[in-house]
Amino acid sequence: MTATIDLNADLGEGLGAWTMGDDAALLGVVSSANVATGFHAGDPTIMRRTCAAAAERGVSVGAHVAYRDLHGFGRRALAVDPEDLTADVLYQVSALEGIARAAGTQVAYCKPHGALYNTIAKDPAQAAATAEALAAFRPGLTVLGLPGTPWQEAAEAAGLRFVAEAFADRAYTPAGQLVPRSQPGSVLHDVDEITARCVAMARGEAVTDVEGGQLVLTPGSICVHGDTPGAVEIARAARAALEQAGVTLAPFAATPGREG
Amino acid sequence: MTATIDLNADLGEGLGAWTMGDDAALLGVVSSANVATGFHAGDPTIMRRTCAAAAERGVSVGAHVAYRDLHGFGRRALAVDPEDLTADVLYQVSALEGIARAAGTQVAYCKPHGALYNTIAKDPAQAAATAEALAAFRPGLTVLGLPGTPWQEAAEAAGLRFVAEAFADRAYTPAGQLVPRSQPGSVLHDVDEITARCVAMARGEAVTDVEGGQLVLTPGSICVHGDTPGAVEIARAARAALEQAGVTLAPFAATPGREG
Amino acid sequence: MTATIDLNADLGEGLGAWTMGDDAALLGVVSSANVATGFHAGDPTIMRRTCAAAAERGVSVGAHVAYRDLHGFGRRALAVDPEDLTADVLYQVSALEGIARAAGTQVAYCKPHGALYNTIAKDPAQAAATAEALAAFRPGLTVLGLPGTPWQEAAEAAGLRFVAEAFADRAYTPAGQLVPRSQPGSVLHDVDEITARCVAMARGEAVTDVEGGQLVLTPGSICVHGDTPGAVEIARAARAALEQAGVTLAPFAATPGREG
Amino acid sequence: MTATIDLNADLGEGLGAWTMGDDAALLGVVSSANVATGFHAGDPTIMRRTCAAAAERGVSVGAHVAYRDLHGFGRRALAVDPEDLTADVLYQVSALEGIARAAGTQVAYCKPHGALYNTIAKDPAQAAATAEALAAFRPGLTVLGLPGTPWQEAAEAAGLRFVAEAFADRAYTPAGQLVPRSQPGSVLHDVDEITARCVAMARGEAVTDVEGGQLVLTPGSICVHGDTPGAVEIARAARAALEQAGVTLAPFAATPGREG
Repeated sequence: MTATIDLNADLGEGLGAWTMGDDAALLGVVSSANVATGFHAGDPTIMRRTCAAAAERGVSVGAHVAYRDLHGFGRRALAVDPEDLTADVLYQVSALEGIARAAGTQVAYCKPHGALYNTIAKDPAQAAATAEALAAFRPGLTVLGLPGTPWQEAAEAAGLRFVAEAFADRAYTPAGQLVPRSQPGSVLHDVDEITARCVAMARGEAVTDVEGGQLVLTPGSICVHGDTPGAVEIARAARAALEQAGVTLAPFAATPGREG
Repeated sequence: MTATIDLNADLGEGLGAWTMGDDAALLGVVSSANVATGFHAGDPTIMRRTCAAAAERGVSVGAHVAYRDLHGFGRRALAVDPEDLTADVLYQVSALEGIARAAGTQVAYCKPHGALYNTIAKDPAQAAATAEALAAFRPGLTVLGLPGTPWQEAAEAAGLRFVAEAFADRAYTPAGQLVPRSQPGSVLHDVDEITARCVAMARGEAVTDVEGGQLVLTPGSICVHGDTPGAVEIARAARAALEQAGVTLAPFAATPGREG
Repeated sequence: MTATIDLNADLGEGLGAWTMGDDAALLGVVSSANVATGFHAGDPTIMRRTCAAAAERGVSVGAHVAYRDLHGFGRRALAVDPEDLTADVLYQVSALEGIARAAGTQVAYCKPHGALYNTIAKDPAQAAATAEALAAFRPGLTVLGLPGTPWQEAAEAAGLRFVAEAFADRAYTPAGQLVPRSQPGSVLHDVDEITARCVAMARGEAVTDVEGGQLVLTPGSICVHGDTPGAVEIARAARAALEQAGVTLAPFAATPGREG
Repeated sequence: MTATIDLNADLGEGLGAWTMGDDAALLGVVSSANVATGFHAGDPTIMRRTCAAAAERGVSVGAHVAYRDLHGFGRRALAVDPEDLTADVLYQVSALEGIARAAGTQVAYCKPHGALYNTIAKDPAQAAATAEALAAFRPGLTVLGLPGTPWQEAAEAAGLRFVAEAFADRAYTPAGQLVPRSQPGSVLHDVDEITARCVAMARGEAVTDVEGGQLVLTPGSICVHGDTPGAVEIARAARAALEQAGVTLAPFAATPGREG
């Protein structure tokens, strides 16, 4: 039986004259692109170019919605009122949808960014506000996130299709939670180890947890990075290893109106 | 034969803790609401509330797109590259569309705001960039503006439905152009005169131009203001005069998916 | 013996075309003006006009520094890195200093705004970051805040002159802490009660705490509000009551270079 | 006789997570740093680090003030009201002054950025508004710009010390004006030619104009770029050539309070 996996990465994170990461390289690696929607990064022109490039490559477009915080790149928690958060998320995903359509594709999924990603993994009110926006945008939309969190719960309660994401370069606890970045050993750097974990995760095989035990994760998508030259190399190696292992790369969320 | 006219006004021009004008009063007067889309005014929460209130009242929602300029309220010319302007307009109208849909309505038309409104009445490149965005958003979209300008030309060249707007409180040249605000007598203040001009415009009858001649304008919509208490009174008087004269008030642009 | 007190209020909280509160009325009431510095409200033109009006009235100018959050009016907690917070506060107070000097006055003190005000009353790291900025700006600068908090501690540790602020329209616990706004009875609305509490606080006499006990506060300044017509009336009544009781109104922080 | 020249470059043009150019390399080349002040680039933390690095290297700090336009990097003309422009410039230069002082230096001069630089070279009203701000900030402040323009005229009328800037990599007309970038041959790319022109300009010798004639420019400072690896190499080569030719590099504007 052939395994299938999705690789996702953050794209379109420049702003005006500023650039971030190597989008062209990443588009040759991933099957899903988390496109910044203007609140933490990404201006409308960059959004349009990123959607066009993704459409050309057959890469799915996801809305990388965030707190309104250009100066902090969306990485700073912001105590937004839930009503405002719902409206902010709806605004962003809708703006991207119009731009994606003009580029010949559509929003296929949503992956919240940075501090919002982390907050909804802990805070039910912010998770519910985010889920409400996405269900209002499109009932049953696919969303990406950490499994077993308030975000999964809120998303499913709102009728969204929740898909678990995994990180091949991060250590996990025996319970399947990410080891916090503040702890030593939380981030892996060895290319061979990372690519081997990618293949194992894609095949449904166990990886080693932080205490040496065996842990089976069944992610719908694996996150790769591209903000450093080294990161792009790891992402390429991961893709090559997956293909060599016979794993099929395919978007975890179909683009509406596009043939499978 | 019964005449029909549309009254439009700018709504949702607050931002966060700041308010602007009396939206509730204006929603009882107009048939079309130009809803700010976040670049000169209007945050996502205000956009959502404004769309919901408009939907409840049967008022059409228009995208009041603008240059990115909160500090100048979109009233300052900004030399945006055409590619960026197209993307900026597409971003704004798309964001409003998603919010309007969640509120049970849709974007029915677009009226550019402030400095963008004035620039596209003179500058073919900016007019074409704006039209390109709106045609990409929805082919054949209705747009409002000054007739006989590069904006009308660009809109029609892009396949948009151009509708002429008139101002009952502004003096016109014999050629049908607005007398610049810098000239004395350019803005009318007498309520009776303004309301009489409203009725004449709606019926296709002549109004007096700035040189005393007779001028027939055939607008699809008349703009009213609401940013001062006096302005709201004039708007109310205009509506009352129109109704008393047997003129039917109706949106000039139908909302997609809504029964006529 | 003649008592002396300061009244402070937030001023200059408009932005571009938006206004907030009745600054002209408040300048006739207060002895100290907390001038918004552009991060939560206040653009440079408004800052300049506000400083000029304060200078003309002999009202001291304070820097009302805030988190970078126009959309939330600085009322939303933002998890800023301490290094960034120090730089943000230094940027704001310095910008106001230059504008105040051009208007013939100077920054006499600093009162953090909104969420920053509340955060530094609880969080030692953010309090220290704020204090570091102000000590770098001017050693020994006067700062306003809630007594008995990490903010007082950090300010004094940084060599700043801490002055306690009180609120005549807020209920206090027996320990002298503000009753949270979420609790019933936390905000007083009766004009006579508020003005009586103002006079008592200014004279060093006891006020009634939320449990009915007697509480002596010895504030250096009392905060009044001006964002509603009713608030301005209360502020005026407070000033009149203080004057009638023989209390002298005077800035709690001297403006450098100005004769007392 | 020994010639002396200043080299200036734009520094601190990152924003939050975004970087721009190679500041560390440029600080080893220039004698004056145009530090972005937050309106087109540069956040307070970057401003502080840039000032500290400049102070450590003995490089003069200049205020690189700009239109409020992060998305356009200050390169887009903005029709700001003169009163607002004066306040905007005063705000920026004052913010940098406070940050520079905390870093052990001071603002030594001002060089407007991008679209503002170009506009004040043509528009007397915007030039006067900019000059008014800088004279209010510090009487007699040194400013950099294109000679023979409304900017020079307005600066001198406001009592500022105007210093002419030249560009070693740009072609000049026989009248000493820059050949517009839109014309072929307007920008030079040959390293040897650029460094030779640098040396000639510094010595007061003639360079070849675009029509082949001889043109003597006597700039107080020569602008170098650092936004590409090639640009940094050219800047380094220019400095080496100047030193080899016996030209002394020194800031054209003294830092107040610092020994010459």
